[in-house]
Amino acid sequence: MKILSGLFSVAMAMAVTLPAQAQFAKPEDAVKYRKASFTVMAAHFGRLGAMANGRMPYDAKAAAENADVALTMSKLPWAAFGEGTDKGDTRAKPEIWKESAKYKEAADKMQAEMGKLNVAAKAGNIDALKVAFGPAAASCKACHDNFRKD
Amino acid sequence: MKILSGLFSVAMAMAVTLPAQAQFAKPEDAVKYRKASFTVMAAHFGRLGAMANGRMPYDAKAAAENADVALTMSKLPWAAFGEGTDKGDTRAKPEIWKESAKYKEAADKMQAEMGKLNVAAKAGNIDALKVAFGPAAASCKACHDNFRKD
Repeated sequence: MKILSGLFSVAMAMAVTLPAQAQFAKPEDAVKYRKASFTVMAAHFGRLGAMANGRMPYDAKAAAENADVALTMSKLPWAAFGEGTDKGDTRAKPEIWKESAKYKEAADKMQAEMGKLNVAAKAGNIDALKVAFGPAAASCKACHDNFRKD
Repeated sequence: MKILSGLFSVAMAMAVTLPAQAQFAKPEDAVKYRKASFTVMAAHFGRLGAMANGRMPYDAKAAAENADVALTMSKLPWAAFGEGTDKGDTRAKPEIWKESAKYKEAADKMQAEMGKLNVAAKAGNIDALKVAFGPAAASCKACHDNFRKD
């Protein structure tokens, strides 16, 4: 399995369950797209963190809205790790393609945590948000530590 | 009104109806965010165009999913045109802030067209998609022509 898992495998394995089809004219378009989706997710996720950590006033409506965008974005980047996207203007480590099963697991974990955070954000109280934010942030960090260059 | 409309006005006028609050640590974060949200929108909008124009096979489920992401993204960038975001790594023209009412009108138009495209994409037939795609694309172009540097 490991030998067979090449550049295609991550994108192929993930495309099945994802709304965004892996359709980019050029590899650099895919790289730009996946970075953009992470950027948008980080902005909205960061606002949830700011509320959870008291750096921003808690606002139930804003929390729910930010969580919706973060959850939508969490599903997008994975389709953009196809062939030829391991180079160029990217901090993606080769491990993404070399250890594609492990990468998929980390990506799935993040999406699952973002789903829980979404439910928590819609509970309408800050305590639920606080409980869910930590594990979600940890799922981001775990993937960055293993699969993103500093 | 025109004299009073300054750097704040676009973001302030738009923030009211938007899920994304205008909360960025630095102006360059806002610029990066709004560009990212346009990049993600363009990728999904482009797939709808490819289906409408026959460059990609029509797929009702994919059309609906792409239209959902495009609609979500269409609401985001406007909160990121606040004070200090008229410079740096951006193609935004000064007219965005000088003619903020006109800019808001163009932004609202695009969101409305993206809403119609979303309904059309969910109708489940390519003809509806074809009808809605043109006006939506025109609303993108109108704004680019007037408010974005080449």
